[in-house]
This record gives sequence, structure tokens and C-alpha cells, in this order.
Amino acid sequence: MKSIDNRPQWKKKLYEIIYEADTPMGKIFDIVLLVLIVFSVALVMLESITHLHVKYYWEFFIAEWVITIFFTIEYIARIVVIKRPKSYIFSFYGIVDLLSTVPSYLGFFMGGKNLFFAIRALRLLRVFRVLKITRYVGESNKLMIALQKSKAKILVFLFAVFIICIITGTLMHLIEGKAGGFTNIPISIYWCIVTLTTVGFGDIAPITPLGRLLASLLMIVGYGIIAVPTGIVGAEYSKATDESIADNTQVCPHCNEDQHLADAEFCHNCGNKLNE
Amino acid sequence: MKSIDNRPQWKKKLYEIIYEADTPMGKIFDIVLLVLIVFSVALVMLESITHLHVKYYWEFFIAEWVITIFFTIEYIARIVVIKRPKSYIFSFYGIVDLLSTVPSYLGFFMGGKNLFFAIRALRLLRVFRVLKITRYVGESNKLMIALQKSKAKILVFLFAVFIICIITGTLMHLIEGKAGGFTNIPISIYWCIVTLTTVGFGDIAPITPLGRLLASLLMIVGYGIIAVPTGIVGAEYSKATDESIADNTQVCPHCNEDQHLADAEFCHNCGNKLNE
Amino acid sequence: MKSIDNRPQWKKKLYEIIYEADTPMGKIFDIVLLVLIVFSVALVMLESITHLHVKYYWEFFIAEWVITIFFTIEYIARIVVIKRPKSYIFSFYGIVDLLSTVPSYLGFFMGGKNLFFAIRALRLLRVFRVLKITRYVGESNKLMIALQKSKAKILVFLFAVFIICIITGTLMHLIEGKAGGFTNIPISIYWCIVTLTTVGFGDIAPITPLGRLLASLLMIVGYGIIAVPTGIVGAEYSKATDESIADNTQVCPHCNEDQHLADAEFCHNCGNKLNE
Amino acid sequence: MKSIDNRPQWKKKLYEIIYEADTPMGKIFDIVLLVLIVFSVALVMLESITHLHVKYYWEFFIAEWVITIFFTIEYIARIVVIKRPKSYIFSFYGIVDLLSTVPSYLGFFMGGKNLFFAIRALRLLRVFRVLKITRYVGESNKLMIALQKSKAKILVFLFAVFIICIITGTLMHLIEGKAGGFTNIPISIYWCIVTLTTVGFGDIAPITPLGRLLASLLMIVGYGIIAVPTGIVGAEYSKATDESIADNTQVCPHCNEDQHLADAEFCHNCGNKLNE
Repeated sequence: MKSIDNRPQWKKKLYEIIYEADTPMGKIFDIVLLVLIVFSVALVMLESITHLHVKYYWEFFIAEWVITIFFTIEYIARIVVIKRPKSYIFSFYGIVDLLSTVPSYLGFFMGGKNLFFAIRALRLLRVFRVLKITRYVGESNKLMIALQKSKAKILVFLFAVFIICIITGTLMHLIEGKAGGFTNIPISIYWCIVTLTTVGFGDIAPITPLGRLLASLLMIVGYGIIAVPTGIVGAEYSKATDESIADNTQVCPHCNEDQHLADAEFCHNCGNKLNE
Repeated sequence: MKSIDNRPQWKKKLYEIIYEADTPMGKIFDIVLLVLIVFSVALVMLESITHLHVKYYWEFFIAEWVITIFFTIEYIARIVVIKRPKSYIFSFYGIVDLLSTVPSYLGFFMGGKNLFFAIRALRLLRVFRVLKITRYVGESNKLMIALQKSKAKILVFLFAVFIICIITGTLMHLIEGKAGGFTNIPISIYWCIVTLTTVGFGDIAPITPLGRLLASLLMIVGYGIIAVPTGIVGAEYSKATDESIADNTQVCPHCNEDQHLADAEFCHNCGNKLNE
Repeated sequence: MKSIDNRPQWKKKLYEIIYEADTPMGKIFDIVLLVLIVFSVALVMLESITHLHVKYYWEFFIAEWVITIFFTIEYIARIVVIKRPKSYIFSFYGIVDLLSTVPSYLGFFMGGKNLFFAIRALRLLRVFRVLKITRYVGESNKLMIALQKSKAKILVFLFAVFIICIITGTLMHLIEGKAGGFTNIPISIYWCIVTLTTVGFGDIAPITPLGRLLASLLMIVGYGIIAVPTGIVGAEYSKATDESIADNTQVCPHCNEDQHLADAEFCHNCGNKLNE
Repeated sequence: MKSIDNRPQWKKKLYEIIYEADTPMGKIFDIVLLVLIVFSVALVMLESITHLHVKYYWEFFIAEWVITIFFTIEYIARIVVIKRPKSYIFSFYGIVDLLSTVPSYLGFFMGGKNLFFAIRALRLLRVFRVLKITRYVGESNKLMIALQKSKAKILVFLFAVFIICIITGTLMHLIEGKAGGFTNIPISIYWCIVTLTTVGFGDIAPITPLGRLLASLLMIVGYGIIAVPTGIVGAEYSKATDESIADNTQVCPHCNEDQHLADAEFCHNCGNKLNE
């Protein structure tokens, strides 16, 4: 970071506007960008509704290109004004920014617009950058810690769920056969996941007494094991919170007691002042 | 409150009956009002059942107007007897009380009765006033504290859910197309919400193998993340309860600080001994 | 209990067999009764299956009457051998025992067998008596304490759920109308409960864009508030367990420290022996 | 273990490769086996898809027999190289290994291939052996402790759920009759389980107002009691974690007791000072 910054003045200024949000111009830029991102995602959604697409074909076409050109200019500007362009281009946001513009061009030159639809919706990921969710970062950090600590347990749990689904799926295929919709084992496993997660679409459902008995067992098991990840994450989150409280606290210089309330000024154990 | 109360005696008496519940008359008024509110909401519900509406047209008509007139008189009385009418009229309950009467008049004079149906059901909100749920206030306070402390985390969580739904919804629209009911992206997003929340109506369901694979992933993710808000609220509620337990323990005789650890011997605020 | 027991010897002996389970005969009686109860409930279930009912009409008829007569004799015996018959007749189990026999007689003499079906299934409640679930009583006590302490909170919560359902139900009726199956407000409220509890049958489902938007909101709210009762019961149960551990413990006679592990023999605070 | 190992050298070497994973050859063997197991399970699944089965009949046939022969050789090798073959043959994995080969032979000689489908899918259980999931063992142990401690409570809970389902199922059969699909009591009980676990397929759904009212009650109860097992497992898991934390603290230098409260200064077992 101590390398000499030999960018011209206008690049530095533009850098402040585009990458930072401390100046009034930077804030305005962020808000305009946020509006355009949300607008462009809404456009993708509305365009997928056939009768709107037919009726407002040209309006969609123009709006799409206005946004694409703005995003293209923004992408080029981001590369130009930054000190080390490579660090931006190959970063997560650099790729997301590129994917916000390329699909439109590909769709225009190559025709198969539908194929690039999904990628266009990725524009929404750009929201994260603009939001710079400072207020909630602390919160999501704690959530992340809880999830990370629960990761190994949740993997063990998911593996168990997966094996239950394969075995029950095979059994259901044998019991129900093709009548109830359990045409083959992959479909039966899909049904097991739908049932075990308590979603229950009902497009496939057992009709034989034995199949219904097995389904009942599966559902009760599913009901029982929904408790497991909930309990795990809850306990881990509870600990993550406790630890972050413990981090904030103090150790008494007189008796070395280290459990104090956040706003304690005197040690509750020996009565001496903390932080002398 | 120190302004001279120059309302005539009958206003003061009526005020006690209508607004308070300490006198026998006040209690009777409250009970009558409670019965009428529940009755009027039941009326709205029953009126929506076509064959009952046709059969008992006049009974509904009369009952509706009796209640409307009673509520109108009550509303006027509430304005007349109170010291500062404006503080009532623009309060939450003042507006709810007004909305309990106006729709009937509008429906009578303007015809389009259906439009005012929903607003009439708002009468149920009036129940809260009458109940004066003193017994459960402490409970709901703790719940409110837990929910309020969890607010930021739940917002982060809901935002993540929303983005998962938009991306998966777009993918499902591309994979399934119009055959499975995924006609456009908003409908696909609606389906994602239905699936992720484990509701699973089944009016829309994937039928292609790839669509079912993606749906399985979505369901397992949904099953996993149901743990997150549960764990959060549980932990926060647990803490809210613990803190209120801490309230019960000791009060420092020197500085009246009342937040101490369970095994504290000295006040953490002023350093003096507790329980001398 | 100090009243003179002037029952003849055979009554005392029969009392031991029927009401107690300490003697070998008492145990055999209990097992026979348990088998008959489960058998009679299974009978009620199988009888409801039409083709079995037609095919094995006489087998069902005979089995039903054998069980009814056994239960009748048992009921009379229970009254005869007990010291104070009234305390049995009007107890919970006395009424359940009576309801195990009466429906068969009523069905035989009055015809309308179907009407007494449900009451016959109540025989299953008798299982509780025979099981004398001593091993699990401690467990269910803790569960009961947790549920009882959560009662007020859960009531507040259910009341909130109920009001959400009434208001959303009314709105859905107005938005969707009769096309989507939201024929009247009670049915719409039923749909709201089905949706909010994440059951989601799919027999009624919104089809208009606005209705689906409102349904999405309702589902996300439902997903969020499922956390509330879970968190409450979890926290209360956790406390109930802690307290019951605290109940088991001791207070040091030397330093009055009252937080000891369940198997502590010496005070962890001053090193003196507990329970001298 | 102190018996003289008189197996020839090649048996010892093969034993290391097949049963252990420390040598490079042992690792390669494990990976090949893992791939074959996953491949063979995938084969069972794909074979169940009719059009694939017809199209690639011979490919499936050959792949199936290659795997079966490999597993047969492996099974025989496992018996030959081990010191005490009986301890392997009658162990859990010995039986699973046998069941991985026998169904193919039975299907070939006896025809009824379908009947042995489910058993072939059991091959997946072999994955557990290969994985030797050392990393996650600690995690799953804690989960097991939590589940084991919750067992009694969950049984009480499931028994209560079962009785609710029988009684509500009987009532729903009486109320709804055959129109709504509640053809007989076992089907109604199946519907109750589907509803109470919030799966809600929708193939059976109440249509009468009274039936819908009862269903609403059942769903709200189900929503309420989903909290119970979640809370239980969460609390037990939380305790299991806490206790394992307690393990980390101190060990008494006098009596080696290792269960102490976090702030203990004297051993609660022998009364001597900790940490002298």
C-alpha cells in the first residue's frame, strides 16, 4: 500500500466517487446504482411474463440497453480508475459486474436470449456491494460463526438424511410401484426429500396401505430430526453470543476474576476498581 | 396533567365508564363492548357465506346497522367526554374506532359493499383495548424484547432468503419452462417461497429431473436454514429471561444498582459490599 | 385412610389383582387388559374398512361383544371391590372405563352404530392406567412444567396468530374471490391457518398475482414466527431442567455455598464436607 | 490379542491393504472400493428408470456382474485374511458385505429381480466403513449423547402424538365420511400424521366446515408441539456441549475427579485443594 500513487487527479476523484461513499457525490452515485440494479432485476422478472413481453416489447428493449450501456461504462470506469486493475477484474465483484453486462451482448448477437436470463438475475448480487451493510455486519458475523461451528455437525446430519432418503426411496418404489407416481428410484428419493423436509407437494403420494405406513414412519422421523439442526444452531449461536460478550469484558487486576457485567466498574468479587 | 379539569360532572362519570374498568358500570360497559365486537366480526364472516347471505339477508342487514349505530354513538361519546379530543381522534385506537363505523355508511351510500369488507374486519383490533391484557403484558414484553433484539439478525436472514428465492426462481423458470407451471419468473419466485418455507401447496411442482434435483437442494437448504431464526429467537429469549432473573437478585444498598451477577459479593458499580 | 377396612377377604384379594401390579396375578391381569385394549382399538379401526367389514362381519361382531362383556365385568368388579365406589365412578378413569362399554350396548339397541365409533376409540385412553408409566413420569413432569410455564406466552402468541389469520383471510377473500377457492371468509381463514402452519394442502391456492404476493408475505411471516414458540418452550424446558438439578443439590453448612454438582461430597468453595 | 499370529506373510500384507488405510496400497484400495460402492448404488437407481433399462440393458447387465464379482472376491478375501473369520462374518459389516453380493445371484437364478432391489441399495451402508469418519466422530458422538438423553422424552412425546392422531383420525372419519377421502380410520390416522407433521400432501383434505374446523385445531396443535422436541434436543445438546467444556477445566491432583464447576477451588469429591 506504500507504493507511490501516480494516478492523475481525475482518476483519484472518480475513484472516490465510484468506490467510496464518504463524499456527497459518492453517496449519490451509490443510490443511483442501487436503483438501477433493483430496476434491472425487476425488468428481468417482468420481461419473463409473456403478455407484458409482447405488449411492451420496445420499452423492455430500450430499458435493457440503457442499463446494459450504463453498466458497461461503469465497469470500464472501475477498471480505469483503480490502481491495480487485475485485483478488481478477478475479484468476486469484478466477475459479477462483468456478468451484468455480457449476457445482454451475447443475447443480442447470438439470439438465444433465454439462456442468459439466469445470469442477468445475478445482477442482484451487486446490491451487496452498494449496501455496504455496516450496521448488520456484526450480526451476520455472529450468524456466520454459529453456522461455521455447526458445519461439521450439519454435514453429519445431512449425510444421515441422504442415506435415509435413498433407502426409503428404494423401498417406496418397490411398495408403491408406478401407480402412485413412484416411477423409478430417483423420483422416489425426490419424494422422500419432499416428505422429510415437510414440504409435501402432493403431486406424488402413496396410495397403498403399506406405502402409507412407511410414509407415516418417515414423516414422524422427519418431524423428530427437524429438531436436531435447530437445536445445534441454537446452541452454537447462543455460545457465539456468550463468547462475544466475554470478549468485551475485563479481568480484575486484583483478584483476576474475569466474569464481569459489560458495564461493571468495580470487581464484584474483591470490590476493587477495574481498569485503574 | 396539571391543567384544571373543567368538564361537567356527567362527562367525568361517563369518562370513567367508557375509558376505565374499575367501577361496576365500567366493567359492564367493557363486557358489552367485547361481546358486540366479537359478534360484529362473526357477522362479517358469516355474511360472506353466500347461501347464508341470501337466506338471512334482512337479519344481517338489521344486525349490521344496530352495531354500526352503537359504534357511532360510542365513538361520538368517546370524543365528547375526553378532555383533549384530538389526542384520542388521532391515536391508533381512535382511528380503529372510526374505521369500525365509516365502511358501513360508505357501503350504504356508495354501493360497492365488498370494498369495505376488509376494513370492517379490522374491528377485531378493538378487542385489544377492551382486554387490557394486564396478565400477559409481562409475557409479551419479554417476547417483544426477544423479537426486537433479533430484528437485525432476522432482517439479514430474510434478505438472504429473498436472494436465494430470486436466483433459484429464475433457474427453475429456465429449467422447467411453462409445462410444470413455472410460467414466468415472479411465479417461480412465488413457488420458491412456498417451497423454502416448507408450505408446499403442490399447485406448481417441478416435473423434469433437473428441476427436481434443484428443488431437492432448495428444500434441504430450506430445512437447514429453518434452524437459524429459531435458534436466534430462542437464544435471545433465553437471554431476556436470564436478565429479568438477574433483576430478582440483589440491589446495592449504596448506589441502588440492581444488575448484579448471581454470585456477586461487591457492587460492580460503586465497589461497596452487597448485603451488609 | 384410617377408617376400618371391613371388606371381606376375597374383595381385598381381587382389589390387589385389579388395581395393583405388585403380585404375579396383578401383573398377568394388567398384561391381559393391555392386550385387550390394544386389540379392541385395532378392531374399531379395521371395522371401518368397508371390504373387511363386509367380509368378516360375524368375526367382528363376536370379537366386539367378547370385549364389551369382559370390559363390563371388569367395570362392575372395579366398583364392587373398591372401598369407596363413588371415588372411582366419578374419577377420570372411571368415566373412561364406562365409556368403553356403553357405546356397544347403545349401538346394539338403538342402531346408529356410527355415532358411537369415536367414543369406542377412547378405549385407548385406558392404556395410560395399565402402563403406569413410572419410568417416564419424571420426564413428562419436566415437559409439563415447561409447557405450563410457557402457557401464558403461547396464548399471547396464538391470539396474535388468530388475528393475523382473520385479517389475512378477509383480504384473501376480497383479492382472490371465488375462482381460487376462497369462497367465503371462514374458508379463507382456514386456508390462512393451513398456510401459516406450513401444512399447505394445496386444495385451495391463490391464482392472482396480488393474492400470491400476499400469500408469500404470510408464508415468510409464518416461517419467522415458527421460531417463537420453539424458542419459548426450549428456553423454559432448559430452565425446568436446571431448576430440577438445583433442587437436588445441597447447601454447604460451612460457607453456605449452594451451587454444587449433583454428586458433590465436599464443598468446592471452602473444602469442608457437605452433609456432616 | 496375545494369541500367536501364525498367518502367512501374504495374508498379513493383504489384511493391511483391505482392513487398514495407513499404507499407500490400503488407501488406493479404499478409494477404489468407495468409487465402486457409489457407482453400484447409482447403477441400482438408474436401472429403475424404465427407458434407460430398456435402452442400456446389456450395459447394466455387465456392470452389475462386474461389481458383484468384485464384491464377491473382496468378501472371500476378507474372510481368508482375517485371524478369526467368525468375528467378521457375524459382525454388522460382515452381513452388509454379504448382502451386497447375494441379491444379484438370487436374482439371476430365481428371476424375481425386483424383490432384491431394496437389499442391493443397502450397499450404500458400506460407505460408512470406508469413510472411517474420524473427523466427524467427535461431533456425531455429541449428537448421539444429546439424542440418547432425549430418548425417553421423545418417546413420551411420540406416544402423545400417536394418541392425538388416533382420536382425531376417528373423529375426522365420522365427520368427513367417504366424500373427502377419509374412507376408513387407518386412512384418517394417516391423514392426521401427514397434517400434524406439517407435510400436508393434499391428496386427502377436509371439505366440510366442521372437518375444516377440527383440522385447523389439529394444525395449530401441531404447530405448537413442533416446539417440544426441538426445545428438548436443543437443551440436551446444549448441556452435552457444556459438560464437555467442564471436562476441559481441572482434574483433582488427589483423586483424579475431573468434573468440577468452572469456579471450584476445592475438589468436591475428596475435599483437597485444586491447583496447588
